[in-house]
Amino acid sequence: MITREQVRSLVTRKGFQRFIIGVIVVNAITLGFETSPGMVAEFGGVLHFADRAALAIFVTEILLRIYAFGWAFFRDSWNIFDLVIIGIAIVPATGEFSVLRSLRILRVLRLISVVPSMRRVVGGLLAAVPGMASIAALLALVLYVAGVMATKLFQHLQPEHFADMGTTLFTLFQVMTGEGWPDIARELMRKAPLAWIFFVTYIIVSSFAVLNMFIAVVVNGMDRGMTEELVEAEEKHAAEQKASDELLLTEIRALRAEIAELRAARE
Amino acid sequence: MITREQVRSLVTRKGFQRFIIGVIVVNAITLGFETSPGMVAEFGGVLHFADRAALAIFVTEILLRIYAFGWAFFRDSWNIFDLVIIGIAIVPATGEFSVLRSLRILRVLRLISVVPSMRRVVGGLLAAVPGMASIAALLALVLYVAGVMATKLFQHLQPEHFADMGTTLFTLFQVMTGEGWPDIARELMRKAPLAWIFFVTYIIVSSFAVLNMFIAVVVNGMDRGMTEELVEAEEKHAAEQKASDELLLTEIRALRAEIAELRAARE
Amino acid sequence: MITREQVRSLVTRKGFQRFIIGVIVVNAITLGFETSPGMVAEFGGVLHFADRAALAIFVTEILLRIYAFGWAFFRDSWNIFDLVIIGIAIVPATGEFSVLRSLRILRVLRLISVVPSMRRVVGGLLAAVPGMASIAALLALVLYVAGVMATKLFQHLQPEHFADMGTTLFTLFQVMTGEGWPDIARELMRKAPLAWIFFVTYIIVSSFAVLNMFIAVVVNGMDRGMTEELVEAEEKHAAEQKASDELLLTEIRALRAEIAELRAARE
Amino acid sequence: MITREQVRSLVTRKGFQRFIIGVIVVNAITLGFETSPGMVAEFGGVLHFADRAALAIFVTEILLRIYAFGWAFFRDSWNIFDLVIIGIAIVPATGEFSVLRSLRILRVLRLISVVPSMRRVVGGLLAAVPGMASIAALLALVLYVAGVMATKLFQHLQPEHFADMGTTLFTLFQVMTGEGWPDIARELMRKAPLAWIFFVTYIIVSSFAVLNMFIAVVVNGMDRGMTEELVEAEEKHAAEQKASDELLLTEIRALRAEIAELRAARE
Repeated sequence: MITREQVRSLVTRKGFQRFIIGVIVVNAITLGFETSPGMVAEFGGVLHFADRAALAIFVTEILLRIYAFGWAFFRDSWNIFDLVIIGIAIVPATGEFSVLRSLRILRVLRLISVVPSMRRVVGGLLAAVPGMASIAALLALVLYVAGVMATKLFQHLQPEHFADMGTTLFTLFQVMTGEGWPDIARELMRKAPLAWIFFVTYIIVSSFAVLNMFIAVVVNGMDRGMTEELVEAEEKHAAEQKASDELLLTEIRALRAEIAELRAARE
Repeated sequence: MITREQVRSLVTRKGFQRFIIGVIVVNAITLGFETSPGMVAEFGGVLHFADRAALAIFVTEILLRIYAFGWAFFRDSWNIFDLVIIGIAIVPATGEFSVLRSLRILRVLRLISVVPSMRRVVGGLLAAVPGMASIAALLALVLYVAGVMATKLFQHLQPEHFADMGTTLFTLFQVMTGEGWPDIARELMRKAPLAWIFFVTYIIVSSFAVLNMFIAVVVNGMDRGMTEELVEAEEKHAAEQKASDELLLTEIRALRAEIAELRAARE
Repeated sequence: MITREQVRSLVTRKGFQRFIIGVIVVNAITLGFETSPGMVAEFGGVLHFADRAALAIFVTEILLRIYAFGWAFFRDSWNIFDLVIIGIAIVPATGEFSVLRSLRILRVLRLISVVPSMRRVVGGLLAAVPGMASIAALLALVLYVAGVMATKLFQHLQPEHFADMGTTLFTLFQVMTGEGWPDIARELMRKAPLAWIFFVTYIIVSSFAVLNMFIAVVVNGMDRGMTEELVEAEEKHAAEQKASDELLLTEIRALRAEIAELRAARE
Repeated sequence: MITREQVRSLVTRKGFQRFIIGVIVVNAITLGFETSPGMVAEFGGVLHFADRAALAIFVTEILLRIYAFGWAFFRDSWNIFDLVIIGIAIVPATGEFSVLRSLRILRVLRLISVVPSMRRVVGGLLAAVPGMASIAALLALVLYVAGVMATKLFQHLQPEHFADMGTTLFTLFQVMTGEGWPDIARELMRKAPLAWIFFVTYIIVSSFAVLNMFIAVVVNGMDRGMTEELVEAEEKHAAEQKASDELLLTEIRALRAEIAELRAARE
């Protein structure tokens, strides 16, 4: 029987990881080909087989890793990420769930968890998220308040953009990206001339909030890039200083010893 | 009779504040439901009652706080914020003032003044405002000058965008957000081929001013995030240095004392 | 006769400057009113008189300042700015030069040169310009090359956007602001399917150049805001350190003096 | 026979480089004129001759430089840049390759390699590229995954935007620039009401990735501008400190020497 240690040494081997990366890349390409009806008509069978094979390999790999690491497997969030992505792919996608078939391409995102440098980059990006949380909450609050207000005010004037909360929130997201808002506003202003107050206020407030969310990300990015360098210079200087001070101390102590000797000799 | 101290201890209790937060959240949800005609048709009575109840609670709370803190209440700008928001809600909204009914949702913004972490975030955002004031004044000046100029120049060529100062200022705000300006400019250029000079100049100047307003915010955000860390490293280093210097000083003084003794013994 | 010193003391007096600021503000308002045909119909005479009076005051003021400072007047670039703005206003604007009449509003920009805090802000903004010069030159080169290429390639396919160098450069400025480019590109791609290469390359290169121009401004803004604070902390620390070192030195020198005395006594 | 040294001293002479810059500028102007049919009709012969002459000069110059520097020529990437640009220009552009004729304007980009200050700026910009590489790879992955998914999901609903991978990737690039996405999304949502999930997710993820790519550039730009100044202040301080410490050390050593003398005298 194969022991856990053997499986663990297999799944953590460089060669094994490269093989998985290769399978992901090949699978990404075959899934890309599947978007072309011409390719499907000609090589449909091959593409389908390649996809099944890739899925089988992914499932085997993940089972091996679960066997190798036991419960520890579930403690790493990247493993949960892999598990969810594979899980989506093996759900039978028939009838009304055919949308799930398009989600198979999400498997390619496993590249992020498999390639260490990608993992680091995404880890760095996610590290900026907590710093954004409180401003994101504020933005959500602003969106909700603006959403209720706009729905109440403009519901009957422009139902295609403000019919209900869902429609309004989508419209407000659109306005936040700054896209096509003058058309919406000008049409409304024909019926409600003061509608500009809502739009101008909303655009200024939401831009300001988004800007501050960006700053949270920038400050985080800076911290990694720049502060380090400066703190390093500072610390190098501090270390030099310490060495210099210790030399002084040694000298003074030697002096005291000599004087002590002098005194001893005298008595 | 209930003393001010008792009321003060009530309104500053954690449980009381949590209760108010709960009421705000429930009220936010019922106001959200009120945007749906279906919900209003079915649960209109309940929603209306919930809204009235929430308002009654808010009014009671604010009266309690005014009683508890007396004039000191009006010295905190967050209290004024609460007062204005509640004030808007109790103005009778009938006839032509029906717009005020939609402003009831503003009450939800009280979450900002009630939740301490929200308060800190908004406080931080507002702290950036004074640094932006002088550039905002400059931007207002640019907008006014461009507004008068564009109205005079394009009034008769494109009345739908430049009929009067109000219309022009809205159009200029639109151009500043970069939305749909080529349509306006191209149409004008058919009649006034040199209109591009106005647009290109205005876009460059206003982008530059807005960019600099952003920088004021970024610099402020940085100051909080980064400089702190650096200044801290600097200060820690300075403290270490001081300790090291004091050690040297102690040693030298001990030395002097010993030599003084030596001299005293000699004489 | 009035001496230069008397005139100089007049034009540099606080009250005189406040009077000029007042005249500028009043003139700004009357010029704003002139954009409204209704206002002109009713108060046309008053508005026209106010404008003439303001101009007369500005001309007098500038002549007084030239008399007061002599050639030194022309050495300050803000004075040249005032002179040009007043110059534009007194050119007779009739017939085909009626555009010049709309330029009268530029006088309001004199607020910048008269109000010291505005002057500082604009001075700060302009200080960022030299740092942007070399990237601006690069951007101009990219625009010219892209302009010639697009004109040659698309001239006959889409004359309304690429007929000649002027039209193309305006279109490229539009694309750089990111506005409406997909419409132009999609229409072209119907006739020249590879046109997307030009657009995607141009958008990436020009965004990158503009981004770097922004960075030049941000770095400049940072320098003023942040570095100062850090350098200050550094310098304060250095000063403390120096004081501490001097104390050590004094102690050691005192020690030497004592030992010298001791030795002298011995001999 | 002319020696390599003579040619090398010729091509590196200031005057020679200024001559080449002049030829590039003149050629840029004639190529600009060629975009105007009127100019071509009148001065076609002159423009054509100027272009041929400029090309001849460029070819001669590059051959001289290759002769002068031998294999070393090919080691500088700016030389390769020049070679490719000249290479494009001498390919015969007839029939279906007439597009190549418009690429002749690329020659003007040689200004970058010839003018040292331009070279420095572009070098600085390119220095930021490696720092962006890993996030660019992530963005490419996101684009590919979103591309396959959108093609599979929307292919039959909106063929003009999502017919195949190429069309979808162009549409996704368009959405990433934030241009015209609401039109595409709203049309899709009429048939697939949940399409907003795809768009909102894609816009947030791609903005976040692009923002982080920008930050990589900003951090790089900062490093050059700001950190330097701070590190300098730090180092100046460290040097002062060292001088002060050495003075202390000298004093203490002098003291020890005196005491040693004292002791020697005693014995």
